Parts: sequence; structure tokens; C-alpha cells
Amino acid sequence: MSLINTQVVPFKVQAYHNGKFVEVTDADLRGHWSVFVFYPADFTFVCPTELEDLADLYDEFKKINCEIYSVSTDTHFTHKAWAEASPAIKKVRYPMLGDPAQKLARAFDVLIEEEGLALRGTFIIDPNGVIKGMEVNDNSIGRNAAELLRKVKAAKYVAEHPGEVCPAKWNEGAETLKPSIDLVGKI
Amino acid sequence: MSLINTQVVPFKVQAYHNGKFVEVTDADLRGHWSVFVFYPADFTFVCPTELEDLADLYDEFKKINCEIYSVSTDTHFTHKAWAEASPAIKKVRYPMLGDPAQKLARAFDVLIEEEGLALRGTFIIDPNGVIKGMEVNDNSIGRNAAELLRKVKAAKYVAEHPGEVCPAKWNEGAETLKPSIDLVGKI
Amino acid sequence: MSLINTQVVPFKVQAYHNGKFVEVTDADLRGHWSVFVFYPADFTFVCPTELEDLADLYDEFKKINCEIYSVSTDTHFTHKAWAEASPAIKKVRYPMLGDPAQKLARAFDVLIEEEGLALRGTFIIDPNGVIKGMEVNDNSIGRNAAELLRKVKAAKYVAEHPGEVCPAKWNEGAETLKPSIDLVGKI
Amino acid sequence: MSLINTQVVPFKVQAYHNGKFVEVTDADLRGHWSVFVFYPADFTFVCPTELEDLADLYDEFKKINCEIYSVSTDTHFTHKAWAEASPAIKKVRYPMLGDPAQKLARAFDVLIEEEGLALRGTFIIDPNGVIKGMEVNDNSIGRNAAELLRKVKAAKYVAEHPGEVCPAKWNEGAETLKPSIDLVGKI
Amino acid sequence: MSLINTQVVPFKVQAYHNGKFVEVTDADLRGHWSVFVFYPADFTFVCPTELEDLADLYDEFKKINCEIYSVSTDTHFTHKAWAEASPAIKKVRYPMLGDPAQKLARAFDVLIEEEGLALRGTFIIDPNGVIKGMEVNDNSIGRNAAELLRKVKAAKYVAEHPGEVCPAKWNEGAETLKPSIDLVGKI
Amino acid sequence: MSLINTQVVPFKVQAYHNGKFVEVTDADLRGHWSVFVFYPADFTFVCPTELEDLADLYDEFKKINCEIYSVSTDTHFTHKAWAEASPAIKKVRYPMLGDPAQKLARAFDVLIEEEGLALRGTFIIDPNGVIKGMEVNDNSIGRNAAELLRKVKAAKYVAEHPGEVCPAKWNEGAETLKPSIDLVGKI
Amino acid sequence: MSLINTQVVPFKVQAYHNGKFVEVTDADLRGHWSVFVFYPADFTFVCPTELEDLADLYDEFKKINCEIYSVSTDTHFTHKAWAEASPAIKKVRYPMLGDPAQKLARAFDVLIEEEGLALRGTFIIDPNGVIKGMEVNDNSIGRNAAELLRKVKAAKYVAEHPGEVCPAKWNEGAETLKPSIDLVGKI
Amino acid sequence: MSLINTQVVPFKVQAYHNGKFVEVTDADLRGHWSVFVFYPADFTFVCPTELEDLADLYDEFKKINCEIYSVSTDTHFTHKAWAEASPAIKKVRYPMLGDPAQKLARAFDVLIEEEGLALRGTFIIDPNGVIKGMEVNDNSIGRNAAELLRKVKAAKYVAEHPGEVCPAKWNEGAETLKPSIDLVGKI
Amino acid sequence: MSLINTQVVPFKVQAYHNGKFVEVTDADLRGHWSVFVFYPADFTFVCPTELEDLADLYDEFKKINCEIYSVSTDTHFTHKAWAEASPAIKKVRYPMLGDPAQKLARAFDVLIEEEGLALRGTFIIDPNGVIKGMEVNDNSIGRNAAELLRKVKAAKYVAEHPGEVCPAKWNEGAETLKPSIDLVGKI
Amino acid sequence: MSLINTQVVPFKVQAYHNGKFVEVTDADLRGHWSVFVFYPADFTFVCPTELEDLADLYDEFKKINCEIYSVSTDTHFTHKAWAEASPAIKKVRYPMLGDPAQKLARAFDVLIEEEGLALRGTFIIDPNGVIKGMEVNDNSIGRNAAELLRKVKAAKYVAEHPGEVCPAKWNEGAETLKPSIDLVGKI
Repeated sequence: MSLINTQVVPFKVQAYHNGKFVEVTDADLRGHWSVFVFYPADFTFVCPTELEDLADLYDEFKKINCEIYSVSTDTHFTHKAWAEASPAIKKVRYPMLGDPAQKLARAFDVLIEEEGLALRGTFIIDPNGVIKGMEVNDNSIGRNAAELLRKVKAAKYVAEHPGEVCPAKWNEGAETLKPSIDLVGKI
Repeated sequence: MSLINTQVVPFKVQAYHNGKFVEVTDADLRGHWSVFVFYPADFTFVCPTELEDLADLYDEFKKINCEIYSVSTDTHFTHKAWAEASPAIKKVRYPMLGDPAQKLARAFDVLIEEEGLALRGTFIIDPNGVIKGMEVNDNSIGRNAAELLRKVKAAKYVAEHPGEVCPAKWNEGAETLKPSIDLVGKI
Repeated sequence: MSLINTQVVPFKVQAYHNGKFVEVTDADLRGHWSVFVFYPADFTFVCPTELEDLADLYDEFKKINCEIYSVSTDTHFTHKAWAEASPAIKKVRYPMLGDPAQKLARAFDVLIEEEGLALRGTFIIDPNGVIKGMEVNDNSIGRNAAELLRKVKAAKYVAEHPGEVCPAKWNEGAETLKPSIDLVGKI
Repeated sequence: MSLINTQVVPFKVQAYHNGKFVEVTDADLRGHWSVFVFYPADFTFVCPTELEDLADLYDEFKKINCEIYSVSTDTHFTHKAWAEASPAIKKVRYPMLGDPAQKLARAFDVLIEEEGLALRGTFIIDPNGVIKGMEVNDNSIGRNAAELLRKVKAAKYVAEHPGEVCPAKWNEGAETLKPSIDLVGKI
Repeated sequence: MSLINTQVVPFKVQAYHNGKFVEVTDADLRGHWSVFVFYPADFTFVCPTELEDLADLYDEFKKINCEIYSVSTDTHFTHKAWAEASPAIKKVRYPMLGDPAQKLARAFDVLIEEEGLALRGTFIIDPNGVIKGMEVNDNSIGRNAAELLRKVKAAKYVAEHPGEVCPAKWNEGAETLKPSIDLVGKI
Repeated sequence: MSLINTQVVPFKVQAYHNGKFVEVTDADLRGHWSVFVFYPADFTFVCPTELEDLADLYDEFKKINCEIYSVSTDTHFTHKAWAEASPAIKKVRYPMLGDPAQKLARAFDVLIEEEGLALRGTFIIDPNGVIKGMEVNDNSIGRNAAELLRKVKAAKYVAEHPGEVCPAKWNEGAETLKPSIDLVGKI
Repeated sequence: MSLINTQVVPFKVQAYHNGKFVEVTDADLRGHWSVFVFYPADFTFVCPTELEDLADLYDEFKKINCEIYSVSTDTHFTHKAWAEASPAIKKVRYPMLGDPAQKLARAFDVLIEEEGLALRGTFIIDPNGVIKGMEVNDNSIGRNAAELLRKVKAAKYVAEHPGEVCPAKWNEGAETLKPSIDLVGKI
Repeated sequence: MSLINTQVVPFKVQAYHNGKFVEVTDADLRGHWSVFVFYPADFTFVCPTELEDLADLYDEFKKINCEIYSVSTDTHFTHKAWAEASPAIKKVRYPMLGDPAQKLARAFDVLIEEEGLALRGTFIIDPNGVIKGMEVNDNSIGRNAAELLRKVKAAKYVAEHPGEVCPAKWNEGAETLKPSIDLVGKI
Repeated sequence: MSLINTQVVPFKVQAYHNGKFVEVTDADLRGHWSVFVFYPADFTFVCPTELEDLADLYDEFKKINCEIYSVSTDTHFTHKAWAEASPAIKKVRYPMLGDPAQKLARAFDVLIEEEGLALRGTFIIDPNGVIKGMEVNDNSIGRNAAELLRKVKAAKYVAEHPGEVCPAKWNEGAETLKPSIDLVGKI
Repeated sequence: MSLINTQVVPFKVQAYHNGKFVEVTDADLRGHWSVFVFYPADFTFVCPTELEDLADLYDEFKKINCEIYSVSTDTHFTHKAWAEASPAIKKVRYPMLGDPAQKLARAFDVLIEEEGLALRGTFIIDPNGVIKGMEVNDNSIGRNAAELLRKVKAAKYVAEHPGEVCPAKWNEGAETLKPSIDLVGKI
């Protein structure tokens, strides 16, 4: 069964966040939009560019009340060490979740069991903890934070405007569609 | 288990393609890149804008030897009728697969069993029939054909250039990364 | 076990009815006779002639308080589109049920699982939701609305006249039989 | 699963046929069209009128190379006794199969287990032993031999004219349909 | 486990009795002795001679408050027809049970499953519905009503005279045995 | 399933026969008719009268090539002791089988498990080891050797005269029936 | 698991005792010591010498409040006949239990299933129905009543003198041992 | 199932024998009679008197070609230490088997699982490794070596004199019985 | 699952302690630190040197409120005998547990099932009965009591000083570590 | 079952070793002694002191042909980063295995499933890949490299000198024991 429109499972993990170790649970996802960004491993290659890309757009996400959570199967200790060692990761201001027990990676179906590492999976979660969008790529391809921002905005717009839907490549401010029987076969 | 890096299941369906009814099977995916684009139903609202968006970029996809296949649980008869009735769908030149037996939707894990309709799922498939990327959204959000094109290009580039990976928001022509032990913790 | 004399399963589907989208459930079958007419797919060949044949006799069915429900595994969106495109279907004034989740087709045992389409099955249902007669044909043979009308009338007559049964090829107004021990071996 | 388009199960029963006791098996169905007519019990009320109705049209069935087989869970001994006692059954020239072991009634899914009697079920079987049409009614309604003849003729016509299908209420000599993509949505 | 000394199973069947159709159940066996006489089929050969043999001694059975029930897997309709057609069966004044659902034949373990017919089984049942004696023969051998009468009388005598048992070939009026420790090894 | 027309199970028991201990097996039943006579226990009351009754008719059974075997769950040692102590048993010239392992009693379904004793069961077995008739009574009723002899003769007559059957209460020399279709309903 | 120190199972059997038939149950074992003596069969060879040996010492057993029970799978009828026929058994004054249902032999694990006979097993049972000693021999060896008496006395002595145990070959009146830590390794 | 007349299971244990550690297996039991003597534990109380009693009669056992094996769940190390510490055990010249893995105690069904100790069980084993006699006592009662010797002699005598059996309390040189049909009921 | 940080199972065994037999249970472990020292068998070779090594340091263990328990699958009787026979074991003042039922050895996963002996396993248990450390060696290697003492002290120190941990080869009095985020990657 | 004396499972992991990434498999353990040292996580507190302690004694281990392998569930990327960041880890010259798939931690039974981290477990493995010793501690206690070295030497000595065993706290050069029956109870 697809994860879309299912509830995020209960979880409790240690995270590194702005120089501190904090605990993050599923309860923390309530009341705002969230983005879960899985990546294979700290101290590797594509990963820091993706996290940096998100760090650069972080203020835009905050503006629409959306928190970013990066997740790998590394520990929070390793996240801290990486943050101190890598120029790209130094920029990160969102929580970096440690998932060494691999429960999040397994629940979101992105764990490569043979390797113990996560695939590059991104998940858009609404303020009720329900998954509204997902994207998973083979580990050799980088993601695009701007497109992710566009999709969160669309999901948020539709959630807040019942009766409207966003057409293809919709961007903030563009027109939306209002489904009605008269549109059947007319678009 | 994630669908990423698994083989597309064997299948055989009827499709509507440029005014004709043709049979499409998994064997037809070999030798070129493919994109599978699932959508809920013919004669509905977001769907035609997404298919039109893809139709507009179709020549770009063909240039990189990538075929597009749209799929819904409607029949090929209905696809033909829709193509004749809808100005947006009239533009479509790629095969529109009929999946009334719902085998493709189930195999790609996008079937909403309660409704018999597919979620908006997109899958990037390599010339060996292996899934390299996927994106699935709740049915109220439209996708973006340009971003899809970017990702197919990245997947293709990496497949054709062993030893290189594409960083975040990589676009055709941009620089790539060459993983080596010396980069650990340096990015 | 035969479906004859069993209760129709609970169901809820979307239907196209005289230019509107309406919901139809098993509760709607109570209090009048019903005919369920399954057919393979909208926008095909034998199907419209059968539906037109029923449309032509629709007033006769209404006179005996019998509603007709056509059913295919297409959506109600497609039914609307077909009604607008086909001269035969334009005549239809009874509800056209959409069964894309294939629950009705499976419950009435007319689903061809390999194809996701229904066989040409007709079911006569009494005002308590009990199936009293059924007919299923291979998809290459057309049905006969007049014969169906004759059978509904017979079923209704017997239901309303306890102690009488209708002999072969009985038609409205003809004599019926009153079973008694004295008739044993005498007919 | 529907019985339509499945093979008749192997069977061997005793029958009463024109004053003789004969054995009938599934092998006897090969090479000509067949009609199986189940009814509840010898020496009852609706049954003889149905069998008589068929007897009256028997020459028409023979003309199109179609044999009729009546079946009940009575023995062939009882069939003989009935034929001698009843004016209606005296007319019967087709084989009357005895099914006291209830194997045929169970295989055609018309056995009422609680009573040990068959429902009024009719089955059209092609020269390969494949079921092409079926009709089953609650025991209080009589069937119509003329309509049955019409359907056998349609099934036979389509089987012998590949590429054509019979529209609703088709009768021998009437026009048929030749499905092609150009007819989609045009009827 | 042997049926001897077990309770007759609950049952409800239709019977032909002296020109009427009546319902017979296990409750009807209470308060008098009963004999169940199974035979293969109406309108066959040994069967009528056995039923006639019982009919001739029927008054003797009634004198000792014992009812006879004949049973076959034929219907009560067929029993009536047979009674009218056969000179032997015309004499029968005891109830003829129809067991087309084959529940009685199965419960008394006399059903030949392959044929749907009963073996020639006779059962003596006491006023509490408990089976006290049984006899079953291959279908080519006829039974003896006089010997059956002797056994019912013996069973009844012993039931009514606690402390006595009937020796071999005991007949009404003959001496019985009174078991005591002093007889051990003395007879 | 009824024991009628099934094969006697393989067995090997010790028996007392005319002053000697002998072994009896199923192989010994081949080539002649046999009667198995079960009874509860040596040194009891009805039993010796039944065995004596058979002893008195033993020459008649031998004349038609039929051997008698009495069986109880006592040992052959006890049979010998009984034969020496009881005037009735002294007359017995047929083998008395010891069945302390209770295998025969269980195989013929006459064992009362709670007591370890056999019911009064009689079985007629043909020269191929197939059971053709059986009679079982509650332990308080004595059997009748003359009636048993009549039934063995009937079974033997029918086995030796294919095409004939014995009517009710048939006795040696009486007329038999020859089943044919013309007799249906005429007796 | 060994039977030693387990409770005797509940039972109810018929016994022959001093010219009478009596019922014996597990409740009868309470309040005194008991000896159960199994043997294969009445009217055999070693058995009577063993039972006679016990009969000769019976007064000694009674003196220490110990009852003897002999048991075989024969009936109580046979026990009586044996007592009358055998000079050795005539001496027996203890109850002879009949176990034709083989429940005791099975519970004490001495039944030879293939033969339906018991092994030569002896069991010492205390006044609470608990087995304290057992001896079982192949059927060709005779037991020794005097040794059995010695063992019952030892068991009784120890039960009545807590803190003492009987050394090897202890006999009534001899010294016993009082276990204490100081004796470890000193005997 | 009783252990009598079953084969000793395969085993391999370490033993202490006359100042040496030796291995003993089931193969060592072949070709001579054996006695297995289980006891609870070294360095306890009743045990040494039993082993001493056997040691005193050891020459008698050897004369009849019978070896004694004592067994406890102690190790062979402990056996050696006991032999050096205890005056009684010093006399022992037969092998003392160590069974710390508790396989022998379990196979002979004398293990008290709760305690890990063996009951006082004695087993007589013939030269083929078949158990012919057994005795098991609650741990508070001592055994008798002389009675054991008597029983081994009886078992041996019978094994070597086919056709004879030993009556109760038989001793070497006494008369035996020769079973024959003429003795039935005469002893 | 590792035994570390699990609760000791409930147990009750007999022990030899300073010339007395005492019962030891899991309740006795509460309120002080404990060390369980398993070894293969009394009266063997490496074992006494290990137990002597512990005996020599026993006062040090008592000083830190830690009790030592040696355990083997021998009985407490054998422990006493060993203590009297061996110069090394004479020194032992801690309880020597007897585990002939092998429940402790199995619960601590040190039982060699094939041999019934324990491996050389040491377990450190805190005052709540929770296992904090374990060491198990192949039976040919001796342990080191001084190192064990060091580890108990470390475990005790950490338990009593929340927020501190002991670095490698920590010894009483040496500095400990206080984990804090600032130490990450700095040691 | 204990891991002692079992074979190391097959494995293949990535390791960081002296500035390079290398693959290590079970085959690499053959031909020399090995020590596996599990610890919870890189960039934590006790761990580096333990690894440093081992690094300081590394030459001693190499002298006796013993390789050290440290293992955590971190990746080899993280190991490299730690080696560059931590002064203690910089000293490490042995391979640091990455076990993110947690297969080694699970196979050696040291994985804390809830946390995804390993307990502090040490394993001594012989040149055939067989585990000869193990030590596991709660995560708050540090180990002692010198004691580990002593144990590897003992294991190696015994393996190379059959017939000798090492007593408690044996150190290289000290005397060993040669087990013989004469030593039983003498140490």
C-alpha cells in the first residue's frame, strides 16, 4: 500500500540541532508542515550538496510554516562531528535526526537492508502528520529544493482552499482549478 | 521494500497511440529511458493539465531517447474518446496505456484499492527496465514536467558516466562530483 | 453457491444520472423492483445497442415500478463523456453506475479478472434486495430487453400472488398455475 | 469465478431417451451445440410446461445442430415413469438426464443444498464443451424456449463469423456489428 | 462408532402418506417404536416387493405400537406417482419419506455417494429415538418383514421387562433368560 | 461410509477350533462364503444360545460352502475353557476367534470402546472377502440362525446368477426377478 | 516421565471377589497400602503360580494393612470361571479386576498394544493413591511375592518414620539410615 | 509404551572402572547379560549400601556372564573421588558410568527433571541389548541384589531353554513350566 | 538477545557453604553486588586454581559488598566432598551452588548440552539482579580474579556516580569521564 | 546456545585502515588469531579510550600474530572522519570495520536493537575462525587491553600445546597444568 495519505508512525529519535542534542518525536510534527529528507550517510558526496541546497532555502520554508528534518542512519554524535567538519553542513539550521536503529528509514520504506543506509527519499507531511507527497531516487541523483518548496506550497494551498486543485507546474499566485461536472472533458 | 532499483514487472496492456490501438509490454521499455506517469482518471481536472505539460515538453524527452507512457485504470477506448473530446489531450503524442485490470497500478503501488483509481505517481525507468526514481503525490497536487526532465537527464548522465554523481539541483551541463576518499568531510 | 435468492451485498458507488453525478447505494434498491445490467466498457460496440434497447423500453419498466441500473467498471466521469458523445447513450434516462473499484462486478460474479471488465450479466432484484433471476452471456452476444421485461413481470406477479406460479413463456395476462397435489403427474 | 467461458466438467449419467435407458457423458457434447436445462423435480408443476415448450421447438434446435438435455436430480427410472404418466412429457424427444448423485447440479452451481433440488438453470454450450451463456431463475418463474433459440443462434453466428458481434435483440438474418476503432463513441 | 444405542439425528422431510403430503420430523418418532426402511429408488425392482411385504404385515406392526417409515432419495412427488402407478405400492399405508437432500441416508450411513442412492438398510428405533438394531444388505438381496417383526417384538419385550434378555431365535411367548452370576459358564 | 461392499481388513488372530489352537487370517476367507458372528463375552448369557443356534445349523452352512467364525474380545485360552465348561458351547464345531487386541471388533465397527466388548454383529462375506450384508443389535436381543442362512443363500444365488435379483423374503427355490426397463413401475 | 510418585488415574472396573461381582474404583485405594499385580491372561501358565504365590502370603499383606489387586484384560466373567476351574486360583481371596477396556493396563503402561494383553507389572501404591514402586518383567519370568512384601514394608516404614531411609536389602526390624551432612562420603 | 522388550538406545559415556577412566557405549553390552543400576547421587546415603550389596554379589553375577553398570548423573571425576573417599564404594569392581548429560537417565525414564537426579531404577538387559526386566522405586527404599540375581538367572534360563517358562519365585535348579494346550485351566 | 542488562531468572538451588548445606535463591542476590562463576566440574584441573584465585581475593570482594557464587552442574554433596578432599577448595569461603538440574547453566547460556557441563562463564550482577558484565571462555583457559575485581569496582562506581563513565583499564581512584556534547570528537 | 566454539558467520564489510577504504571478509580471519572489539559509536566517550588502549598494545598483539578489528555500526566514512578529528583514534593502526547493516553486531549477539548500537563486546577468534573467548559489558564500563592480551596468549599456548591447560591468572612463561587422572581431587 502506498504511504500517501497514511499517518507517520510514532517515533522518538536523538537529533543534532544548532549545536545542541535534542529529542524529536512524531508529536513535534503537529501544527505545521514538515519535510523529511533522507540521505545515505554523513561524510559522503552528494548528500552535503542536497542539505546545503535546503539550507539555502530554509527561510522560505520557515515563511510558510514548514520545518525541514534531515535523516540518516548515522548517530547524532556523527551529525555534530560532520557539522563541524564540513563547510556545507555548517550552514544547516534545521534538525538533523539520527536514526541508527533504522526505524524511520524502515517505516518510510527507504532502507536498503543490505547496506543499512537510506535511499534519497523526500516526504511532505501535513500539520496532522499525514504524508501528502513523496519522492525517492536512486542514490546517484541529487534533488531540487526549489521544486520541493513549490510542491509544499501547492499542498498547503489546496489544504487551505477546499474545492480547488492545483494544475500541473502550478506556482504560488497562479490560477487553480475548481472541479465541477461541467469541466468533464472540457480541459 | 522500496521499488527503487527493482525491475519493472512483466505486463501487457492495450494503449491508444496517435489514433491507433496498440499493445505495449515490458519488452517495449528496453533500449531507451522511460517515464511512467500515472493519473486518476480520464475526463477529470488536474490530469489533463499534467498530460498537456508533458506533451509540451515531449520533443525534449524524445531528444534524450526517453519515451513517456501515461497510465490510468481507464480503458484504451476511453483514452481515445478523451483524446477526441479534450483540447489538452489532443496534443498528446505519447502512448496512453489502459490499465482496467489494475495490474500496473498495483505493481507500482499507486492503486487506491477503495476507489479503483491510481495516485499521481511518476517513475523513471532505465533502458534495462530498472526503476531509478519515483514521485507520488496526493491527488490534489499537480506535477512539473520540467523538473522531471531534469531528473531523467541526471539519471542518464550518471548512468553514462561511471564514477561521477550529480549534486543537488544539477542541470544539464553543470559540473558533477567524482566521489573519492579525499572528499570525505570536505564538502 | 448460486446467487439466486441471496441478498445484494452492501455497496456505494458514484453514478451519472440525467446530467448529474449522484451516489447510489444498496439502500436505494428497497421498495421497488430493480434490474442490474452489467456490460464490458463504455465507448465499445455491442454495449450501446443493449443500453439503447433498454432505454427504448424504459417507460414500460417504470410502469411496473422497476428501476434499471447499468453498470460498467468505467468511472462516472467516463459515463458522462459517453452520454455526450454517443447518440445511443444520449437516450438513456436510468442511472449509469461507475464501478472502477470493481466491487459490484466481483460481488455479482461477472468480473473477468484478467481484463478488469464485466461480462454481460443481467440481474432481477426484488423490492427486498433479493436476487430472483440472472442471465450472463459471453461478451459477443446481445441481450433482449423485451424478454427481460417479461421475466420481471412474471417474478413480480408471482411475488404478489402467493400460491400461483408462471408456466413457461408466460406473458402478462396469461393464465398461471396453482400447484396442488392433484396436479402431480397430470400436466 | 463465472462459469462463462469455462469447460464443462467431465461427467457420466444415466438418461431416459425415447423409451430407452442410455448413458450420456461430457464426450457426447462435442461436435454440436448443446443446451442444458435444469429443473427442480419430475411430477411437479412449472417443469412440464417448460419441457413441453422446448419439445415444441425441438425441430428448430435440431436444424441448427443443437441438442437439448434436460436434467433433474431424479433418477432415469423416474424420468421414464413421468414420461408415461404426463401428457406434456410424452412429447419430449430429447435425452432426460438423471442426476441423483447431484454432481451436474453442483458443477453448474444450481443445486439448492438444503433441498437436494436444482434451480431452473439454462446453459448454452458450444461444440468444444465451453459454456457461452447461462440463465438461472428462482423456481417460481418459467423460461422461454424461443428466446433461448434466439441466443443459441446468435452465439453460433458469432462463433462462425469471426470479427462480427450481434447487437441487442439480434435475430437470425438481422445485421451484425463489425467492431473497429472508428466506431468508438459513434454508436 | 456404531450407530447402535445412538440417538436419531434431528430431521425434517416431506412424505407421501395415504394420498396426502405431510411433514415428518424426528419429534414424530417419540412415544412409539419405529422402523426405518431405506431402499434405492422408486420405480425399480426388488424395492416394491420389500415394501409390499411390509405392507402385508403392517397391521401386526401397528398392534405393537410400531410405525414403519420407508425412505428413498426420491421426492415425495415421485412417491405419489409411484403409488398410483404400481400395484404393489398401492397397498402401502405407512408414510413414504422423500429424502432428495440425502440427509437421512447420510446420517444412517447407507448413502452410496457415487450414485446418490441408499443401500437396503433397516433400523429399529425405540420410543426415545434410540437405534436398537440395524441391518444393511448389498442391493441385490431382499429383506424379510417377518424376521423384522420378531426382532422389534424382542427389543420391545426386553425394554419393558428389565432384568430379562431374549435368547437366540426368541419368539413372542417363548421363555427369556434372567442373567445372574450363577449362570456364568452354566449355559 | 457403510462397510457394505468393502473388503475385509487384513488380520491375524489365534482361534480355538475343535480342541486345537490355530491361527486364522484374512487369507483363510478366500474361496468360500463366510459368516462373522461377534458377541460380547464368553461365560455370559445370551451368547451361548446364539452360538448353539448356529452350531445346530452348522451342517446346513457347510453344505453351501459357508464357514462360520464366532468372535469375541476374549482370548483363545478363554474360548477353550468355555468350551469345556458350557454344555452349549461344547456343540460348537466352527472356529472361535480370540480378539483381545480388539482389532477385528474395531474394523467391523462393533466395539463398545467404553467396555472393551463387541456388540452382537453378524457379517456375510463373499468368497472374495467382500462384505455383502450386516446386522448389528443392541446386546439384549438374540439373533436367528435360520434367517441368516436364508440371507447367505440369497447372496450366493444372486452372485452365481448374474442378471437376477431376489425379492423380499425369498427362499431357496423360489422365483427371482430379472430387472428390465419394461418392469419400471409395473411391480 | 516415570510413574513413580504420580497419582493413580481415576478408574472404575468390575471385579470378581470371593464368589461375588463387585465394582472397584480408585477411591477404594484410599486409606491403606495397595499392590496392583498385572498378568497377561486367565487360563495361562505362569500366571496362576504368581497369583497362588500371592494368595499364600495374603495374610501377611493384610497384617500390614495392604490389599492386593490382580488385573488382566479378561472380563470378571472369565475370572469367575477361572477361579472355579483352576486349583491355584481357587485359593485367591483378593479382588481380581477385569480390564477388558484396557484402561488400567494402558494407564500403568503395561499394555502390549499388538496383543491386547498386559505385561507382568507390579505396582506399590500408598494410602494416598501415589505409586511408590514398580517392577515390570518380560512375560516369561515369574515374580516373587516375598520380595514384594519386603518392599511394601520398607515403603511403609519410611512413610511412617520421617527422617529415616532404608538401606539395601533392608528387612523388617533391621536398622535404617538417618541422612545428615556428616554422613556425606562416610558410608 | 513400556521399555520392556525394546532396544537400549545408542549411548557413549565416560566411566570410572578399577582406577581408570574408560569409555562405555551400547556396543559394550553385546554378548553378555547386563544390569543397569541407576541411583540419585554420589556421596549420599542409601546409594552406597545398594552399590556395596551389588559389589558383595559381584562374583555371582560374573559367573553367569552378567556385567553390572552403576549410573548416576555425576561425572566420572566424582565417581573416582567417591571411590577413594567411601569405604563402601571402595569395594566396587564394576564400571561406574558418569551421565552428567542425563541422556541415559532420560532414555530409561528415571530422570527427575526438577532435580537432575535419577530414581533408583534397575534394568535387566539381554546379550542383544534388549530390556527384559525393570524395577523402579521411590528414592527412600533400598533394593535387593539377591532378588536381582534370581531374576537375571530366570531370564537367562528361559532365554536358553525355549519352550519353558519360570513360575513364581523360581530359583536356579527348581522346576520350570512347559506351556501346552493341555495345561489351560489345569494349574 | 544479549544477557547484558537483563534480569537474572528466578532460581532455587542447594549450596555448600562453610560446612553447611543451604538454599540459595534469586532473592538472595538483592541488595549487594554478585559474581556468578561457572566452571565445568568438581574434581577437575583448571577449576580449582580459578576458585582458589577467587578465594584469595575474597576479602577484597566482601569489602565492596560483593558476594561470589561458584556454580557447576555437580550436586552440593559433591561440593562438600571436594572441599574436604582438595587443598585449593578448602580455602573457599563463598557459597558453592549445586546445579544438577542444569537450570542456571542453561539460563546463563553456558551449558554444553552434549556434555552436561558448564563453560567457564563469569557474570557481574548488580544489587537489582541485573547482569552488567559477562565473560565466557573455552574450557582450556583460566580466568583472572584481579581483573574481575577491577570490573566490579568500575560497574559499582558508575552505578553510584550517575553522569560519569569509566575509561579503558580504569582502576579504583583513577579519573573518570563525564560525557558531554563538548567532548564529541575531542578525545 | 553459547557462541563459544562456534564458527564466525560469513561476512563482508567496508573498513577504514591506515588512510584507505578496504573490504574485510571472514576469509581474512584465517591463518592468524583475531580479536573483534565492538563499541557503541564513533565520536563518543569511553570508546576512544578503549581503542587507544588497544592501539598502545598493538605491537604486542602483532608479535603473537594476532590482528585487532574494531567494529561499530557506523560507516567507514565516519570512521575516517573520526580518525582525522580525534587525537586518540589517530593512533589506531588496525582496521576499523563499518557495520551499518548491523549484521556483525547481530551475529555476535551484541546489538541493542532498540538503539541500533553495539554493546562493548570482545571476542577472541582462533586461526580457524572459531570463537574461543568472549567478554561483554554494559556500555558504562571500559575494558582492559592488557588482560585481553593475556587471554589471547593463553588460548594460543593451549592451542599449540595439546595436553596442557592454563590455570587461573596464567601469564606467558608461567607453568601450565597437564590433566591426568592422578590429579583428580589433588589440586
